[in-house]
Amino acid sequence: MQPSLRPWRRPRRYPPPGTAPGTLIVDPDAARPVVRLMLYGREATEERTVEDVDSLADLIGGPQSIWVDVQGLGDLATIERLGALFNLHHLALEDVLHPEHRPKVEEFDDYLFIIARVPYPGEPFHTEQLAIFAGRGWLVSFQEGRRHQGGSGVSGGDCFALVRERIRHRRGRICEGGADYLAYALLDTTTDAYFPVLEDLGEKIEVLEQAVIAVAEASLIGRIYGMKRDLLNIRRAIWPQREVINALLRDDGGIVADTTKVFLRDCYDHTVQLVDTVETYRDIAAGLIDVYLSSVNTRLNEVMKVLTIIATIFMPLSFITGLYGMNFDRTVSPWNLPELGWKYGYPMVLGLMVLIALGMLFQFRRKGWLGSGWPAARKPEEAP
Amino acid sequence: MQPSLRPWRRPRRYPPPGTAPGTLIVDPDAARPVVRLMLYGREATEERTVEDVDSLADLIGGPQSIWVDVQGLGDLATIERLGALFNLHHLALEDVLHPEHRPKVEEFDDYLFIIARVPYPGEPFHTEQLAIFAGRGWLVSFQEGRRHQGGSGVSGGDCFALVRERIRHRRGRICEGGADYLAYALLDTTTDAYFPVLEDLGEKIEVLEQAVIAVAEASLIGRIYGMKRDLLNIRRAIWPQREVINALLRDDGGIVADTTKVFLRDCYDHTVQLVDTVETYRDIAAGLIDVYLSSVNTRLNEVMKVLTIIATIFMPLSFITGLYGMNFDRTVSPWNLPELGWKYGYPMVLGLMVLIALGMLFQFRRKGWLGSGWPAARKPEEAP
Amino acid sequence: MQPSLRPWRRPRRYPPPGTAPGTLIVDPDAARPVVRLMLYGREATEERTVEDVDSLADLIGGPQSIWVDVQGLGDLATIERLGALFNLHHLALEDVLHPEHRPKVEEFDDYLFIIARVPYPGEPFHTEQLAIFAGRGWLVSFQEGRRHQGGSGVSGGDCFALVRERIRHRRGRICEGGADYLAYALLDTTTDAYFPVLEDLGEKIEVLEQAVIAVAEASLIGRIYGMKRDLLNIRRAIWPQREVINALLRDDGGIVADTTKVFLRDCYDHTVQLVDTVETYRDIAAGLIDVYLSSVNTRLNEVMKVLTIIATIFMPLSFITGLYGMNFDRTVSPWNLPELGWKYGYPMVLGLMVLIALGMLFQFRRKGWLGSGWPAARKPEEAP
Amino acid sequence: MQPSLRPWRRPRRYPPPGTAPGTLIVDPDAARPVVRLMLYGREATEERTVEDVDSLADLIGGPQSIWVDVQGLGDLATIERLGALFNLHHLALEDVLHPEHRPKVEEFDDYLFIIARVPYPGEPFHTEQLAIFAGRGWLVSFQEGRRHQGGSGVSGGDCFALVRERIRHRRGRICEGGADYLAYALLDTTTDAYFPVLEDLGEKIEVLEQAVIAVAEASLIGRIYGMKRDLLNIRRAIWPQREVINALLRDDGGIVADTTKVFLRDCYDHTVQLVDTVETYRDIAAGLIDVYLSSVNTRLNEVMKVLTIIATIFMPLSFITGLYGMNFDRTVSPWNLPELGWKYGYPMVLGLMVLIALGMLFQFRRKGWLGSGWPAARKPEEAP
Amino acid sequence: MQPSLRPWRRPRRYPPPGTAPGTLIVDPDAARPVVRLMLYGREATEERTVEDVDSLADLIGGPQSIWVDVQGLGDLATIERLGALFNLHHLALEDVLHPEHRPKVEEFDDYLFIIARVPYPGEPFHTEQLAIFAGRGWLVSFQEGRRHQGGSGVSGGDCFALVRERIRHRRGRICEGGADYLAYALLDTTTDAYFPVLEDLGEKIEVLEQAVIAVAEASLIGRIYGMKRDLLNIRRAIWPQREVINALLRDDGGIVADTTKVFLRDCYDHTVQLVDTVETYRDIAAGLIDVYLSSVNTRLNEVMKVLTIIATIFMPLSFITGLYGMNFDRTVSPWNLPELGWKYGYPMVLGLMVLIALGMLFQFRRKGWLGSGWPAARKPEEAP
Repeated sequence: MQPSLRPWRRPRRYPPPGTAPGTLIVDPDAARPVVRLMLYGREATEERTVEDVDSLADLIGGPQSIWVDVQGLGDLATIERLGALFNLHHLALEDVLHPEHRPKVEEFDDYLFIIARVPYPGEPFHTEQLAIFAGRGWLVSFQEGRRHQGGSGVSGGDCFALVRERIRHRRGRICEGGADYLAYALLDTTTDAYFPVLEDLGEKIEVLEQAVIAVAEASLIGRIYGMKRDLLNIRRAIWPQREVINALLRDDGGIVADTTKVFLRDCYDHTVQLVDTVETYRDIAAGLIDVYLSSVNTRLNEVMKVLTIIATIFMPLSFITGLYGMNFDRTVSPWNLPELGWKYGYPMVLGLMVLIALGMLFQFRRKGWLGSGWPAARKPEEAP
Repeated sequence: MQPSLRPWRRPRRYPPPGTAPGTLIVDPDAARPVVRLMLYGREATEERTVEDVDSLADLIGGPQSIWVDVQGLGDLATIERLGALFNLHHLALEDVLHPEHRPKVEEFDDYLFIIARVPYPGEPFHTEQLAIFAGRGWLVSFQEGRRHQGGSGVSGGDCFALVRERIRHRRGRICEGGADYLAYALLDTTTDAYFPVLEDLGEKIEVLEQAVIAVAEASLIGRIYGMKRDLLNIRRAIWPQREVINALLRDDGGIVADTTKVFLRDCYDHTVQLVDTVETYRDIAAGLIDVYLSSVNTRLNEVMKVLTIIATIFMPLSFITGLYGMNFDRTVSPWNLPELGWKYGYPMVLGLMVLIALGMLFQFRRKGWLGSGWPAARKPEEAP
Repeated sequence: MQPSLRPWRRPRRYPPPGTAPGTLIVDPDAARPVVRLMLYGREATEERTVEDVDSLADLIGGPQSIWVDVQGLGDLATIERLGALFNLHHLALEDVLHPEHRPKVEEFDDYLFIIARVPYPGEPFHTEQLAIFAGRGWLVSFQEGRRHQGGSGVSGGDCFALVRERIRHRRGRICEGGADYLAYALLDTTTDAYFPVLEDLGEKIEVLEQAVIAVAEASLIGRIYGMKRDLLNIRRAIWPQREVINALLRDDGGIVADTTKVFLRDCYDHTVQLVDTVETYRDIAAGLIDVYLSSVNTRLNEVMKVLTIIATIFMPLSFITGLYGMNFDRTVSPWNLPELGWKYGYPMVLGLMVLIALGMLFQFRRKGWLGSGWPAARKPEEAP
Repeated sequence: MQPSLRPWRRPRRYPPPGTAPGTLIVDPDAARPVVRLMLYGREATEERTVEDVDSLADLIGGPQSIWVDVQGLGDLATIERLGALFNLHHLALEDVLHPEHRPKVEEFDDYLFIIARVPYPGEPFHTEQLAIFAGRGWLVSFQEGRRHQGGSGVSGGDCFALVRERIRHRRGRICEGGADYLAYALLDTTTDAYFPVLEDLGEKIEVLEQAVIAVAEASLIGRIYGMKRDLLNIRRAIWPQREVINALLRDDGGIVADTTKVFLRDCYDHTVQLVDTVETYRDIAAGLIDVYLSSVNTRLNEVMKVLTIIATIFMPLSFITGLYGMNFDRTVSPWNLPELGWKYGYPMVLGLMVLIALGMLFQFRRKGWLGSGWPAARKPEEAP
Repeated sequence: MQPSLRPWRRPRRYPPPGTAPGTLIVDPDAARPVVRLMLYGREATEERTVEDVDSLADLIGGPQSIWVDVQGLGDLATIERLGALFNLHHLALEDVLHPEHRPKVEEFDDYLFIIARVPYPGEPFHTEQLAIFAGRGWLVSFQEGRRHQGGSGVSGGDCFALVRERIRHRRGRICEGGADYLAYALLDTTTDAYFPVLEDLGEKIEVLEQAVIAVAEASLIGRIYGMKRDLLNIRRAIWPQREVINALLRDDGGIVADTTKVFLRDCYDHTVQLVDTVETYRDIAAGLIDVYLSSVNTRLNEVMKVLTIIATIFMPLSFITGLYGMNFDRTVSPWNLPELGWKYGYPMVLGLMVLIALGMLFQFRRKGWLGSGWPAARKPEEAP
């Protein structure tokens, strides 16, 4: 009867405790990687899908900026060869392969290692991991890849389509900006992808608000709870993401250029905005549960009032009918139920019952139990 | 039956994720901008509405302070030309055009970019964005413009009427103060505009308090909830506003003069006062919900007591009447309902019923269920 | 029926938004100021009421310490002339005239400006503003003045009587101490005035605790709520007051002498104690509401048990009496209610009813519904 | 019926506001002081009770470490003479005489002034003040003295018996350690005295847990509440005590030797452990109240189900008996209650009633209202 | 009927207050220690069980890294001799023997003393203490030893089996890494052991979620509460563990090599992940209790509606049957119950009853009390 909650937790695949750190283990369900190369810079932009990763070796250190985008984490060889090519640390590659990490940034000697989370607004809502290695003149990004077929919004495989478009058409300063600007552009894209998700949740909250105020349906509590859990998930992704961008802003390792930092500040601003909205929505959702509970209680009160009114009126009346339904032998004694022999006994009893019922109703009206509320309570509402 | 909550969330208009940062997009519903110029300083004050923005170019760098006030964000050309004239960063102009930003201050090379939020106390309560670019000798302010016709208090279009008045009549030190003092004056005006809003909420809380204590009407919970949401909105505006003014106080970029900082400190003080009041009101509103819930529970208790008293008295009585309404054949055996043939059977049964009823009432009085409370509980109240 | 809550909020008198900062506006309801002068130091102490403020000009810079105490904020001229005499900043004087400020300390070039709040323990409980300007060799204090006639404890007009007494009789080191020591003495007096207030609240909590545990009267929730609000008010006054004294302790502007700081540390200690007590009381009050709610619920449970026991016993019995009150025509068929013609029909039915009632009672005893609690539950209580 | 809560608050004895700071006032109820002297160091340990405090003057500055332990705060002369002897500040002595202070450490020129709180685990649970003045080569400690006769554990008068024992038998490094090590030893003793108290509370929580899960007795909420208040009291004592020891650890005034700091670190560790346990217990107690409330609600639900089942079965049945108990005149018309004249009328009506009752029961079984729970709900429990 | 909660608290064995610090007391129930030696480094790895601890003396300072692993804390002599051999501080050894310590790291002159807690996922869930002394070239670890026979996952005795395996087979950099790397490897192993525990709790939460949404069984609250307590225990272990690893990362005493710190950063990352998950689960569990409480309330509401519907329909009907069951003497007067003599009296009364019942049902349908919910409330759910 109640809608069952959709699953929300991805079972974490962890290596057995005690495994040597940096051991790379591939999730057997992961998608086969597709490696896309983009070469851009002053000269013309080149774009192609790479089959043999080792063929990239010649390009490193060249005049063009290199963007290697890997979608799908299902092939150990590809990832290991990329790691060897760009000298990526084994511990970082291990993190790439466990796509449940919270956003973070780690500074290595020659590159920054950034983990961010991209939201997927479909059902069930969840986030995917984006790992970025940003060096001088090159950037390698790892996406989880296309598990989601029907997700709306920014979804697997298309996440960075618009960034590619900007490079292709040399829009904005992306082509002059280098790898650090590209890293910013990717982070900005993932950050902005949260806005439609929150917009969506905001609309849901408005619908729930109206529903909770109007009625107290049992299914509402489940929906509020589900929304709170989604907010919790977004919060877990967006808080550390803010710290990541803040860390990049404070980076003085020389990888992030000052011109890029102006843009990162804007991106940081967006994460602050997101955090602010998430916290506000959480506060509102908490308030909704209060309203729901008090609605249930108020409704119970009304049910009980109906029951009490009915019982309080009919119990005395039934008692009277019972009284004159007794079979005392009136022939034995004039003390036994003489009323039954009176000429107007029945009308008088009827009249008595009407009096009792009216008295009770008057009492209830005085207590404000009749009508759709507590009449006596109307005054404070009208006061101001 | 329940009043539906008024809308509280402005749907955010965001560019599609992946758009190049700094892309300026105008909200088609925004008002056409009205550009007002004020020139002031040692010499006479000049004031006019500007049709052609480019005509301002000659004034920049002159001896007079320049205040360009733009009301309405509906024309891209005007905003872009102003941006070119004063050398405003595209990312900042993008923020100007999305009027849902939280207050912030950003330092650029030649100017400070400040976002503040102005409260509109009408129904529905909301805040509007005010963007200020404050340079050396000039200040450009962007207001959302006159969407609100009937709002009371500081409302669209008149927000800075009093500041203009002070410049016109050279009241206080505003004419000597330069652009930084003007920025302070604008921030101070928007900050002080929250006081009547909070005063209003304070009065509403007092009314609600009396109402919740006196009765537990179903509509009250909705009103408390609505008030909590308004407080949440004010809080979201006022907390970062405090940080903004604090950041200006700590500014050492040379744009904010030390003489202005004494005034900013006063303005900071006001924001602290506002934050303090908002937090107190939130605490009180949280307490009100507790009181409401316990009022509902207490009332339910009273309803149940009435029901129980009635049922407990009349059920045994009805049972007795039922007993003597049975049709056992008294002619067959003297064991069958001999009481029916007694001379004083009926009076004795009536007496028994009166005894039972009195016994029950005595029991209830002893438990303190009669009267308007729990009589036994009166003592602790009288004790101290 | 319910006691109405006493008012707790003083409507804030704020100047219209946009007024030039530092504009002095006098509350028309404020008391006329009484200016008292104390001259003290190595030589004899002089004490008088000052009519003409300008006559103080000669004393400034003299060998004696000057204490000008102004009670009542109702005359603009007096305050402005004092401001001119001691060179007090207009923004600070504006704060003096709006007696709803939270405690703060501001450092000006030649003096410290301190705002503190003095508690008035009468009904309704509230705090008044005390403004202190402490310079080298002089101190000007502004009190709101004698609005409260019947308040007990430290009340309007007498607040600093004991400090004056100490100066008059040259008790302690107050006469050697200078203006900074006098400022400390005033702050210490206002701080210590909170102790009786909290003592009083502590006693009220103890009474409420006993009451809530013993009964669940509807008025209790209002009283707990009122107490929580008083604690909120004290908290709002005492937290920033602690910061004020801490700021004075850290002051290195030369106004507060090191010898005075030892005493300020003691005063700081008192504010910490007060804060601690207030927080503890707030925790206890929050716990009391839990206890109250669960008491109401438990009591509801007991009411329902009584109702259920009565209904469960008498409903089957009444059904049986109804059964044998049916008028089936026994002459038509031997199948129609043959029990009515049995010799021992009535005693057997009576016996059946007794059996049913006893069975029900046994069932209830087994479930632990009889007695004053849940008998089965006694064991854990006895265990330890 | 409900156990009344034991008192928990000691009324604070404060001097009237405005009293000169440092005024020493003795509580008339305080115990007469007993002064015990211990002289120890390289040479033999000497121990005696001191009658004339002035006789200590010769010992100060000698080669032996001096420990003057004062039990009981009831004699002003003794305390003042000790103050004069060791040059103790009047503000500190004032704190000694008001034994409601929270733990703190204050640094004076020649000594440290430490306040700690010693727990008394008896009924009512409370803490006593321990004041320590630790100088170079001497230590003066003030205990409140023997108000508690029957308290178990570390109680008045015996608090430091084991420390004395260690000095007497020169166990550990206490004799080489100097006054700072002795201060550590005293603080360590008072800190460790909290462990049995918390152990005790832990056991009480376990008992309460079982009780709350098993039943929902009205007295439990009072006991949980009482426990929460005890935890609050311990928390108030132990949090600042942690800060005290931390301050001593960071002390660089030369009074606390580095060798002693290793031991203080251990003591600090204990306070962290205590704080941790207290916070955990508070969390658990908060959870217990949730469980209690939901138990009460669940039980109410069960009571209501019983009532509803009984009423729902017997009301229709009673209606039928009433129907055939009506006295319509069957001789007038064949339409009037013809069933009463049927041959199998009575058995048919009985059969109808059985059918109705069975139908109702079937309905309740289907809804899961019969049995000790909600049978349909068993499945999720068995699932994992 | 309710499942009793399993014990969760280990009674702390503390020395009597006042005992000299550093006194070593062995728990009589502790396991006999098994001492295992591992010698590793450039040369071949040697591994053996040590009977005579003193035989280790020759190895200290040699070229090989020494790992002495002690399982079981039941023999004082072994521990004291190890302490003497490696010059371990008595206060630290005391902590080793009281295995209830929270994780911490302490820096001594020649070694680091680290306490961590290893989770045991069996029933009851608890954590065990791991104490590590890490010096230059040697590491001594103390485990509580094999109290747990049937625990799944990482359990007593096998906790470090995989680390030993890595040393034996010289996998990864463990053999080059020295004692600091070994300390890291042990901490990493204990940290990673929390992941399966949390995975397990995550699954339990999912099951509970479905159960709470579907039904409101009394046992659920106990299970949620138990889960919250487990989370509290994990939190107490994992928060300080994070600080421990952070402290090691910041260590500049030369014991932790920079190459090891890269790995420690990874381990720190894991603890952050754990903390994050624990906090999220706690939030979810708190939400579950809200859902449970509102489910109970909603169900109570439904029970009450059934009761009210039945009572409201049958009470008026029973009243009517009672009315016509009265025995007024129709022979005396035509006013006495003339309806009983009407030709269609009975059918008319039956019809009246049907009308009343239908009217009541119509009323309930209009209020939305019939059906499985509040029909009027369906609309908002369908709206968006």
